[in-house]
Amino acid sequence: MLNAYNYAIGVDLGGTNIRVAAVESNGGIDNEISIPTRSKRGREKIISDIVHLCKQIMERKSGKITAIGFGIPGALKLKEGIVTYSPHLPDWKNFPVKEYLKKDLNLPIVIENDANTAAMGEKWQGAGQGFSNLCCLTLGTGIGGGIILDNKIWRGSQGFAGEVGHMTIKYDGILCPCGNRGCLEAYASGSAIKRIAAEKLKNRGDSILKKPFLQNNDFINPEVVYHAAQNDDKTAIDIFREMGRYLGIGIVNITNLLNLDLMIIGGKVGAAWEFFYPALSKELNSWPYTKAIRHVKIVPSQCGDNAGILGAAYLAMNIKEADERF
Amino acid sequence: MLNAYNYAIGVDLGGTNIRVAAVESNGGIDNEISIPTRSKRGREKIISDIVHLCKQIMERKSGKITAIGFGIPGALKLKEGIVTYSPHLPDWKNFPVKEYLKKDLNLPIVIENDANTAAMGEKWQGAGQGFSNLCCLTLGTGIGGGIILDNKIWRGSQGFAGEVGHMTIKYDGILCPCGNRGCLEAYASGSAIKRIAAEKLKNRGDSILKKPFLQNNDFINPEVVYHAAQNDDKTAIDIFREMGRYLGIGIVNITNLLNLDLMIIGGKVGAAWEFFYPALSKELNSWPYTKAIRHVKIVPSQCGDNAGILGAAYLAMNIKEADERF
Repeated sequence: MLNAYNYAIGVDLGGTNIRVAAVESNGGIDNEISIPTRSKRGREKIISDIVHLCKQIMERKSGKITAIGFGIPGALKLKEGIVTYSPHLPDWKNFPVKEYLKKDLNLPIVIENDANTAAMGEKWQGAGQGFSNLCCLTLGTGIGGGIILDNKIWRGSQGFAGEVGHMTIKYDGILCPCGNRGCLEAYASGSAIKRIAAEKLKNRGDSILKKPFLQNNDFINPEVVYHAAQNDDKTAIDIFREMGRYLGIGIVNITNLLNLDLMIIGGKVGAAWEFFYPALSKELNSWPYTKAIRHVKIVPSQCGDNAGILGAAYLAMNIKEADERF
Repeated sequence: MLNAYNYAIGVDLGGTNIRVAAVESNGGIDNEISIPTRSKRGREKIISDIVHLCKQIMERKSGKITAIGFGIPGALKLKEGIVTYSPHLPDWKNFPVKEYLKKDLNLPIVIENDANTAAMGEKWQGAGQGFSNLCCLTLGTGIGGGIILDNKIWRGSQGFAGEVGHMTIKYDGILCPCGNRGCLEAYASGSAIKRIAAEKLKNRGDSILKKPFLQNNDFINPEVVYHAAQNDDKTAIDIFREMGRYLGIGIVNITNLLNLDLMIIGGKVGAAWEFFYPALSKELNSWPYTKAIRHVKIVPSQCGDNAGILGAAYLAMNIKEADERF
């Protein structure tokens, strides 16, 4: 149950930034702070920063903070409070993060995978309100998936569920950095946009991106392609069209398997919604089979960058529920 | 709760046969009867046969039958007792089957999708005993999927979950009868085996299947290929090897999404386990990513043809549980 008069702290640890905020039981966010993660400096320094930021908020809210929720990009043992593995934070392997935080923060602490906190944030305060069965796709460099079934996070037998990015959509397709071929992530993530852009720019001459790309391949990233698309650049628009179609195939696979109500698309690349959604929608509409596909709604994230903080704080406010399935 | 002294009737309506039996609360099966479905004769005649068979068993068990469970191949509205759509039984569209059965059978009746009854049968009495999170794949002409999460059937928002057969594993691949390209069913089902066999037999001369195939294409079916494989026919063994690899890709996708404990493989084609499992296992072992894949166990069905009857009867014995999620 929500405690109607208090706050929880939501922490969202990303590969680029650490975001911390006080979240009220009605979903209001204040005292939000963002600092760069700089993951190479090591876990102790990162934890020390997080503790410092939490203490700052705790002081300002003088005793009104009831718990802390912490979203972490990686595989976790929730009850034990251990990060078993995080691809972006190599020295967090088998790291008892809850124990470390507990030393300095005398409050109940919940840890959760960041794709799951984002899904829960959207369900609580964003696009997922009122839906029982949903999946929240976070499109960044990779593709994260948070699944909610029967109003609860579906973590699977060991907490590894929601691995959407490495779903094979073409078994003899593009080589993914994971070593497998044809992963959705190799077709519909931020990295995929870079790849598709490079292919198209090599063969086409009509794009405003062509010249800077030839001067420096690294010039191309999803933001740059997005801005070009906003300036009616046909190649840039085609890049998102291609990516949208592939994302549609991934969404069809998830929907056919789980028959969800809702698919929420967030993350940095998700911001290019207007350019990839038409192709995604066309893919779903052209699908000849199953009522599940007709039923599912595809919507953009409403919480944006705050989804993770909100979800983490929500789980902290509802610690019993957070642990129920694990 | 199981009633320790009584029986339920399990009915398994397949495209080829209708199977009916009394199932004891300890899982024992007796009075099993199988008759051909002959779906073209129309639903009234089929229902009339089922009613007749149920009444026969009810008489023999003189008052000990507490409920009837009915597994149906198609999309259902469980509570309303309506078949919304069944690809193999076209005149069952929007058919209020429970109402029809109720007229003549004065017992509580549960209907359930046949892939789900098979999964529940395996969980209750077969390979799934003791596992909370599993998927049961039934490999026949197509591929059916029954998903159990947290010990309960996962039906999705409208009862359409588990549509494994039409998962895209190669978006520009083989055309599936559903109209989509690259469905798992087009690569790893009974129909897929026929297709793979035809391709291989056209190009290779060393198979005992080649001559009869050239005389009559329809000679080839999964059973014939299985027997050839048992006789060390290299082409037949290669056919199952190819199909096993594709099935492995589908299993990886399901596992990465749901992080299940167990994948059970049943159905007629599942009987060729010894020939497709090595390739399937190789595919999973070569997968470079995620602990979910290392965790999941892949096992053959233990209940075989009885899985559906057992699961249907189990749900009938536990009517409250059967309706809980819908």
